[in-house]
Amino acid sequence: MKFRIEHDTLGEMKVEADKYWGAQTQRSLENFPIGTEKMPMEMIYAFMHLKRAASAVNGELGKLPEEKMNAIIEVCDEILAGEWDEHFPLVIWQTGSGTQTNMNVNEVIARRASEIAGKEGFIHPNDDVNMSQSSNDTFPTAMHIAIYTDIEKRLKPALNQLKKTLQTKEEAYMNVIKIGRTHLQDATPLTLGQEISGWRHMIKRSEEMIDRAKSELLNLAIGGTAVGTGINADPLFGDKAAEQLKKQTGYPFVSSKNKFHALTSHDEIVFVHGALKALAADVMKIANDVRFLASGPRSGLGELTIPANEPGSSIMPGKVNPTQSEALTMVAVQVFGNDAAIGFASSQGNFELNVFKPVIVYNALQSIRLLADGLKSFDERCASGIEANLEVIRELMEQSLMLVTALNPHIGYEKSAEIAKKAHKEGTTLKEAALASGYVSEKEYNQWVDPLQMVNLPK
Amino acid sequence: MKFRIEHDTLGEMKVEADKYWGAQTQRSLENFPIGTEKMPMEMIYAFMHLKRAASAVNGELGKLPEEKMNAIIEVCDEILAGEWDEHFPLVIWQTGSGTQTNMNVNEVIARRASEIAGKEGFIHPNDDVNMSQSSNDTFPTAMHIAIYTDIEKRLKPALNQLKKTLQTKEEAYMNVIKIGRTHLQDATPLTLGQEISGWRHMIKRSEEMIDRAKSELLNLAIGGTAVGTGINADPLFGDKAAEQLKKQTGYPFVSSKNKFHALTSHDEIVFVHGALKALAADVMKIANDVRFLASGPRSGLGELTIPANEPGSSIMPGKVNPTQSEALTMVAVQVFGNDAAIGFASSQGNFELNVFKPVIVYNALQSIRLLADGLKSFDERCASGIEANLEVIRELMEQSLMLVTALNPHIGYEKSAEIAKKAHKEGTTLKEAALASGYVSEKEYNQWVDPLQMVNLPK
Amino acid sequence: MKFRIEHDTLGEMKVEADKYWGAQTQRSLENFPIGTEKMPMEMIYAFMHLKRAASAVNGELGKLPEEKMNAIIEVCDEILAGEWDEHFPLVIWQTGSGTQTNMNVNEVIARRASEIAGKEGFIHPNDDVNMSQSSNDTFPTAMHIAIYTDIEKRLKPALNQLKKTLQTKEEAYMNVIKIGRTHLQDATPLTLGQEISGWRHMIKRSEEMIDRAKSELLNLAIGGTAVGTGINADPLFGDKAAEQLKKQTGYPFVSSKNKFHALTSHDEIVFVHGALKALAADVMKIANDVRFLASGPRSGLGELTIPANEPGSSIMPGKVNPTQSEALTMVAVQVFGNDAAIGFASSQGNFELNVFKPVIVYNALQSIRLLADGLKSFDERCASGIEANLEVIRELMEQSLMLVTALNPHIGYEKSAEIAKKAHKEGTTLKEAALASGYVSEKEYNQWVDPLQMVNLPK
Amino acid sequence: MKFRIEHDTLGEMKVEADKYWGAQTQRSLENFPIGTEKMPMEMIYAFMHLKRAASAVNGELGKLPEEKMNAIIEVCDEILAGEWDEHFPLVIWQTGSGTQTNMNVNEVIARRASEIAGKEGFIHPNDDVNMSQSSNDTFPTAMHIAIYTDIEKRLKPALNQLKKTLQTKEEAYMNVIKIGRTHLQDATPLTLGQEISGWRHMIKRSEEMIDRAKSELLNLAIGGTAVGTGINADPLFGDKAAEQLKKQTGYPFVSSKNKFHALTSHDEIVFVHGALKALAADVMKIANDVRFLASGPRSGLGELTIPANEPGSSIMPGKVNPTQSEALTMVAVQVFGNDAAIGFASSQGNFELNVFKPVIVYNALQSIRLLADGLKSFDERCASGIEANLEVIRELMEQSLMLVTALNPHIGYEKSAEIAKKAHKEGTTLKEAALASGYVSEKEYNQWVDPLQMVNLPK
Repeated sequence: MKFRIEHDTLGEMKVEADKYWGAQTQRSLENFPIGTEKMPMEMIYAFMHLKRAASAVNGELGKLPEEKMNAIIEVCDEILAGEWDEHFPLVIWQTGSGTQTNMNVNEVIARRASEIAGKEGFIHPNDDVNMSQSSNDTFPTAMHIAIYTDIEKRLKPALNQLKKTLQTKEEAYMNVIKIGRTHLQDATPLTLGQEISGWRHMIKRSEEMIDRAKSELLNLAIGGTAVGTGINADPLFGDKAAEQLKKQTGYPFVSSKNKFHALTSHDEIVFVHGALKALAADVMKIANDVRFLASGPRSGLGELTIPANEPGSSIMPGKVNPTQSEALTMVAVQVFGNDAAIGFASSQGNFELNVFKPVIVYNALQSIRLLADGLKSFDERCASGIEANLEVIRELMEQSLMLVTALNPHIGYEKSAEIAKKAHKEGTTLKEAALASGYVSEKEYNQWVDPLQMVNLPK
Repeated sequence: MKFRIEHDTLGEMKVEADKYWGAQTQRSLENFPIGTEKMPMEMIYAFMHLKRAASAVNGELGKLPEEKMNAIIEVCDEILAGEWDEHFPLVIWQTGSGTQTNMNVNEVIARRASEIAGKEGFIHPNDDVNMSQSSNDTFPTAMHIAIYTDIEKRLKPALNQLKKTLQTKEEAYMNVIKIGRTHLQDATPLTLGQEISGWRHMIKRSEEMIDRAKSELLNLAIGGTAVGTGINADPLFGDKAAEQLKKQTGYPFVSSKNKFHALTSHDEIVFVHGALKALAADVMKIANDVRFLASGPRSGLGELTIPANEPGSSIMPGKVNPTQSEALTMVAVQVFGNDAAIGFASSQGNFELNVFKPVIVYNALQSIRLLADGLKSFDERCASGIEANLEVIRELMEQSLMLVTALNPHIGYEKSAEIAKKAHKEGTTLKEAALASGYVSEKEYNQWVDPLQMVNLPK
Repeated sequence: MKFRIEHDTLGEMKVEADKYWGAQTQRSLENFPIGTEKMPMEMIYAFMHLKRAASAVNGELGKLPEEKMNAIIEVCDEILAGEWDEHFPLVIWQTGSGTQTNMNVNEVIARRASEIAGKEGFIHPNDDVNMSQSSNDTFPTAMHIAIYTDIEKRLKPALNQLKKTLQTKEEAYMNVIKIGRTHLQDATPLTLGQEISGWRHMIKRSEEMIDRAKSELLNLAIGGTAVGTGINADPLFGDKAAEQLKKQTGYPFVSSKNKFHALTSHDEIVFVHGALKALAADVMKIANDVRFLASGPRSGLGELTIPANEPGSSIMPGKVNPTQSEALTMVAVQVFGNDAAIGFASSQGNFELNVFKPVIVYNALQSIRLLADGLKSFDERCASGIEANLEVIRELMEQSLMLVTALNPHIGYEKSAEIAKKAHKEGTTLKEAALASGYVSEKEYNQWVDPLQMVNLPK
Repeated sequence: MKFRIEHDTLGEMKVEADKYWGAQTQRSLENFPIGTEKMPMEMIYAFMHLKRAASAVNGELGKLPEEKMNAIIEVCDEILAGEWDEHFPLVIWQTGSGTQTNMNVNEVIARRASEIAGKEGFIHPNDDVNMSQSSNDTFPTAMHIAIYTDIEKRLKPALNQLKKTLQTKEEAYMNVIKIGRTHLQDATPLTLGQEISGWRHMIKRSEEMIDRAKSELLNLAIGGTAVGTGINADPLFGDKAAEQLKKQTGYPFVSSKNKFHALTSHDEIVFVHGALKALAADVMKIANDVRFLASGPRSGLGELTIPANEPGSSIMPGKVNPTQSEALTMVAVQVFGNDAAIGFASSQGNFELNVFKPVIVYNALQSIRLLADGLKSFDERCASGIEANLEVIRELMEQSLMLVTALNPHIGYEKSAEIAKKAHKEGTTLKEAALASGYVSEKEYNQWVDPLQMVNLPK
C-alpha cells in the first residue's frame, strides 16, 4: 500500500495515497479503534447538502471566490452521487461533537476540489470548506437533515405501503365475523376487517405523530458556529444557508431561533424518536397479533394463514414459522433500546455543547432504517399474503358462548345466563343449549343470534 | 369496625359500613394485596367527568330516566369537589383493563346516588352508571382525560412560571460577558443572558412539543364499549359523550375514529410521554449547568450564586448545596424510567385489548406531577434567586486565552497564536503576553480585544 | 393544631407540637413540595439498625456516654417496633445525598431519647445521634441494609412459595403429554410437567442470581463519613459498626474496602437490580404462558383452567380473566422502568459523591416490594389453582401432525412426509392418514406413535 | 458473477458460485433485506466450537462415521482460523430462533467438508453437521459461548489494563492533598491518590461482579434439541458436548439442568448484562470526573492535565478536548440502551421458545466490544497520560475554607465558624482570617491546620 504524508499541528501522519482524507481524519482513525459502527453515510450525505449550501451562501456573500465555490459544489454533488463513499472511514465513538467527521468531510472535499481545479492545496478544508461554520453547528445541522430525510425517503414509503396492504385486507374481510378476544378470553364478535382496521389505524396514527414531530427537526443550528453566538459568521449566514438547503432538498428548513439551545439540546430528536417508539409499540402489537392468529396449524388459533417464505420443519407440512413477525418484533425491541440511549445522551449536555451527538444520530438513524426495512419486508413477505381461514374463524365463533348476549333483549338476562351456563357445563354449542332449554325455537334462535348485528358495521 | 354484606355472583363480601363501594371493589381490594400505589385521584376525577357526561347523554337519548341522570350528575359533582376521596381504595396492580376501578367508580356513584334519591338500590352500578359503556372504553377515555388535564392544570403553569423567571434573568444579564465552554474547555465568550436564553428556549421548545403532542390525547375511546364495535351503545353515544365532555371541561375532545385502535394501542400516550422525556432531558441539562456554574464557593466555577434554602455545612459558610437541582435531576431520572415502562407496556396489547392500562397511566401521571412540582419548586427556591458573581465571571473571562481570536484580523493568525502560546507557557494573561510581544500596543489591545464584539448581541 | 418553635442556623421553624422532628426536617418538608412518594419506611428502619449500631460502637469506643447510648438504642428499638412511623414525613425528591432524611432520623431519635431520659435537649441530633457519621456514609449504608433486608424478608419467601407450588404442579402433571409450541407453531410434544419445570427453573435460577448478586450489598459505606476519608470518625468505627450490624441483623455485613467507591458508585445496586430484572423477564414469560394456555374458554388454547377470583363477564360463564397474570405482568413492566432509572442515576456521580441516592433506593425497594407481593398473590390466587384440561390437551396433541416424526425410523422420511401432507391437505388426523396410506397398520401405528417415547422423561 | 443452483423444499435458489452457503442461507439473504447489522463473527466462531464438539461427540457415540467427523472438525478449525469469514452473510433481523444462521453454518461446513473429502454432497448440512442438534438448542448455546468468550478475551484484558494504570497513578499521587467535592461544593480534603483509588475500585468491583455473573453462562442449552426434551439426541449428548467444549475452550461449560428453561429464558444474559451496565455506570462517572477535573485550561477546575491526542482549537493552545472521555461516555450510553433492549427481548418468550435470540446476542456482544475497545483506548490515550497540576491543586485547596474544621478541637466550633464567615465575607484566605481574628497564632495555625491529618492515609 502506498502512503503520502499529511501534516497537522501535532506533526506528520501517513495516509493511504489513494484516499482523499487528511491528517485530522487519519488521526481520528488511529485514535479511536473502538467498535465497528461507522458514521452512517446518511450523515455524510447530509453534510454534503450542508457544505454545498454553505459554499453557495459564502459565494453569494462575496466571501468565497466563485471558482472555489463551484469546485466545492461539484465535489458535493459527486459525493452525493455515491462516488466517494469509501473516503469516510470514521467511527461513531470519536469526539462527541462530531468534529472529526466534520473535518473528514472538509478534508475530502478540499482535496478532491483542489484536484478538480487542478491546483494542489487550492481549497483549504477549514478556511474554505468550513467557512462561516464550526463543527458545533454543522454536526447538529447534519443530524437534523439526515434524520428528516431518512423519515421522508425511507420510513414514510414503507408506512404507506403497509397501510395500503392493510386497507386491502380490511376491505376484503370487512364482513367476516369472528370472535373477539379481550384479556385473551372470548369476547363479543367483530369482523376480521374491523380487527385489521385497528392495525391500519395504528400505522396511520403513528405516521401522523411522526409527521407532527418531524417538523421540529426543520430548525437548524447552522449560523451558531462555535458556542451559539455566530462568531466568525455573517449574521445573515444561518438564515441564508437554511434557505439554500430548502432549495436544494425541498424541505422547509429554517435557522433555529436560539442557537444556544440548538448546540446543547437535542430535545427535538428525543421527541421525534418518541414518535418512532410509539410506532414500534404498535408494530410489536400488530406482529404479535398476526403470529398468534396464524398459530397452529392444528393446535393454535389458526384464524389466519401467512405465506411460507422458507422451509419450516422439513417433515411437518403446514408449519409456517412467522419469521417476518419475528424479524419485525426484534426491530421493535431495538428501537426501544435506542430510545433509551437517545434520551440519556440528550440529557448530558454541559454549558455550550452537548458532546453525545454521534451516539444520538447513530441510534436515531438505525431506528428509522430498521423500521423502514422491517415494515417493508413484513408487508411484502407477510402482510400482503395474509389469508383468512374462513372455516376456522366460523367454527371458533360458532362454538363460542359469547353470542348469548344477543338473547338478552328477547328472553331476559337470567334465562340467557342459564342457557350459557348449561352449554358451558355440558360442553355443547350455545344453540344446542338454547333449543334444549325450551326458551327459544330454532327459528327464533337463527333470527335473534345474528352476529352481524353485534358488530355494528357502518351501513 | 362495622360491616355490611354485599353480594356479587361469586358470593358475599363484607364491606366497611361507612364506605360506598360494593362487592366488586371489595373483592379487588382483597385479591390484589400488591404494593402501595393507589389509582391516582386524577383518574378518579377523570372518570367523574366521563360518568357525568355519559349520564347526561344517556338521559338525552332517552335511555336513562331524568331522576337517575340528575342523581348521578350530582354525585359526580360531589366527588369532583373532593368529598369522597377515601372511597377509591384500589391499587394500580389490579386487572390490566382497569375494570375494577371502573366498577369502584360505578359502585360508589350508584350507592351515593341512591342515598341522595332516598331509595336503596335505586341506581344500579352497571345498568345505570355504566350504561352504554364498558371498562374497555371508559378506562382509556379516563386515561386521556386525566393526562391531558394534568398537563394543562399542573405542568403548563409550572413551565410558564420558570420561563418567566428565566426571561427576567436573561434580560438582567444580557450584557454580562463570560467565558463560553465547549467540551468543558474554555471557548469563545458569550453573555450570561445568552446562556440563560438557551435554557429558556429549552423550556419553551419542550412546551411547544408537549402542546403539539397532547392534542393527540383528545381522541377518546368512548363509544367502543367491549371490543371496539360499540355493542350495547347507541351509535351516536361516542360522539355525544365527547361533545358533552368538551362542554364540561373546555377541552375539545372527540370520539376516536377507530375504536379498535383506541382499545388496544396507547401510541398517543407513548408519544406524549416522549415529549415529557424531551423536557426531562432539558431539565437535566439546565439543573446541571446551574449547579456546576454555582459550584464552589472557592474551588469550583463560582460564576453563579444560588439561594441557601437550608443550612449547608454547619461550619462552612458559603457552602450552598444545590438541593433544588438535585431534586429536579432525580425527577428527570424518574421520568426516564417511567418512559421505559410506558413504552414497554404499550407494546403488549393482544387482539382487542391492551391490558397494561393502569401501569401506563400511573407512570404518565407520576411524570407530570413530578415535573410540575419539581420545576415549580426549582423556580421558586433556586432559579428566581440566581445571582451572577460578576467579579468571578469577569476574572475567568479575562484570564482566558480564547479572546486571542479577536486579534486575528489585525495581526494575522500566526502572530496571534504566538501570543497565546506565550501566555499559556508563561502563565500570564493574554494582554500581558500581547503587550510583551510587541505586536500590539495597549491602546490597540483594548480596542481590538473587545469581547462584546465577539458575542453578536442583537442591536 | 399546636406548634412549637424550632431553630436552625437559618432561623425559626414552626413544627407541629406532637411531632418529634426538628427544624431541618421541617425545612425539608416545606422546601420540597414535590410529588407524593415518601421515603420508604424500609429505609427508616434500616437507619434505625444503623443508628443503633453506631451508638453501641460509639459507646464501646468511649465516645458516647452510656446513658446517651442506652437512650438512643431504646428509641431505635421503639421505632423498629413501628411506634413512630408518622414522624418520618419527607419525600424522595429532596437533596440527593439523603441528608434530610438522615437529619429527620437524627432529630426524631434525639428528641424522643431526651424525652425518655427526662431531659430536654439531652441528646443532640448531630453530636450524639450522628456521632462518627455523615449523611454521605449513612445514607448509602442504609440503602444496602434496606435492599438486602427486603430481598431476604419479602422477596425470597415469595419466590420459595411459588417454587413449591410449581413443583407440586410439575409432579402432578409430569406424565400429561401435550403439544409443544415453538414460534407459536405446533412442535414435538412434551409433558405439562416438563413445561412447568421450565417455569420453576426460571424462578429457581433467578433466585440463585439474586442471591449471588445480593452479597455485593454486604459492603457498607459506613466509616467513610463526609468524603470517604473517614474524617471525624475513629479509624475502627466502620469495621466495628458493620460487625455490630451483623450481630443485630444476622446478615454478614462488612465495612467496604474503599469508601471513595462506596460514596460515589452504586454499581452494586445496579447489579442487584439486574438480577431483579432477570426475574421480571422470567415472570413476564411465565404469566404470559399461563394466560395464553388458559385462553378461551372456547376459542383459545384452553389447556389450563385458572381460578375465577372475581366475576368475569356478568353473562358469560367460563370467562375467567387472568387478572393475576395481568397484575404480575404490570409489575414486571414497572421493574423494567425502575431498572432504567436506577442505571441512569447510578452513572451520575461527580467527584466524591453521587447525589441520586433517594431515587435509586426508591426504585429498588419498589421493585422488590412489587415482585414479592405480585408473586405471592399470583401464587395464592392463580398458580396454586391451575388445573390441566386433560381432554383439551389430549385432543390438541392428537390432532397435531407433529407426531409424524415418530414414524421416521420405521417407514422412512419420505413416506412419513407423504402421510403428514395427506393429513394436512385432507384435514384428517395423522392416524387416519397413516392407515389410509397403507404404509402402517393400526397396531403398528399405536405401537410406534407413542408420544411418551418422544418426551424423554427421566426413568 | 457466476452462480450455481441450489435446491430446498420450496424450489431453486441461485447462489454465487464461489460461496459455500446453500439454499436456506440464500433464501434468508433474500427474505430479510433489513438493516446492515450482520450476525457477529463471534457468534459464527462460537458455532464452530460447538459444531466441532458435536461432531466429536457424535463420532464418539458411533453415530457419525470417522471420516465425516474428521472432515467437519477440519473445516471448523479452518473457519476458526478466519479463513472463510465472508461466507456468513446473514443479518440479525432474521428468524428469532437464529435457525437461518444455524443453517448457514451447517451449509458452509457441509459443502467445504465435502470439498475436502473430495465428494460432492458427502456431508449433509442437517443429517451430519446438525446431527443430534436443533437450532433451538444450538443457537442459545452459541450465544453463551460467544458472550462468555468475549468477556474473557476482550473485556477482561481491557479492565486489567486500566486497573493497572489507575493503580500506578494512585500510588504516584497518594500524598497529593486536594479539595474534596460533594454536591459539587467544596468539602473536606482527600488526596488525589485516594480519589483515583475510588475509580480503580469501581473497575475492580465491576470486574468482580462480571466474573460472578458470567459463570451463569456456563450452563448450555445443548442437548435440549427442538423443545427441550432432547428428541432425536442421545440422552448423553448434552453432557458430552459440554464436556468436549470444555476441553476445546478451557471454560468449564456444563449442560443445563433444565432445557425447557434454557430454550425459553435468557435470564442469565440479562443478569450478565446488568453487570456490564454497572460497569458502564462506573465508566460514565470516571470519564466525567476526568474531564471535569481537566477542564480549563484557565477557566475550569484544571486539577489534571490529559494528553492532547489531536489538535484542539487551531489557535487556542492548551485547549485539550477530552475526546477519549467523550468516546467512552458515548459507549456507556450505548450500553444503557442495549440493556433496555436485552431485558425487553428476554421477557418475550412464549411456550417452548424465546424468538428474540439474535437481537439479544447482538446487543450483548456490541456492549462487550464497545466497553473493551473504549476502555482500552481511554487507558492508552488518556488515563495513562493523566498528570496532576500540582500548583492548581494546592491553590484550590489552600483557598478553600473547608480546612476550618481542623480548628474545631482547638478553639471550639463557634470561634471557628466566626473565622470562616469572616474569610468568606471578606474574600480572604482562611489563614488570613484566622490570624486577623486573634484566636490563633501563625505557628498554631500551621501546626493545627494540617490537611494531611484530615485525609487519614493508611500508615
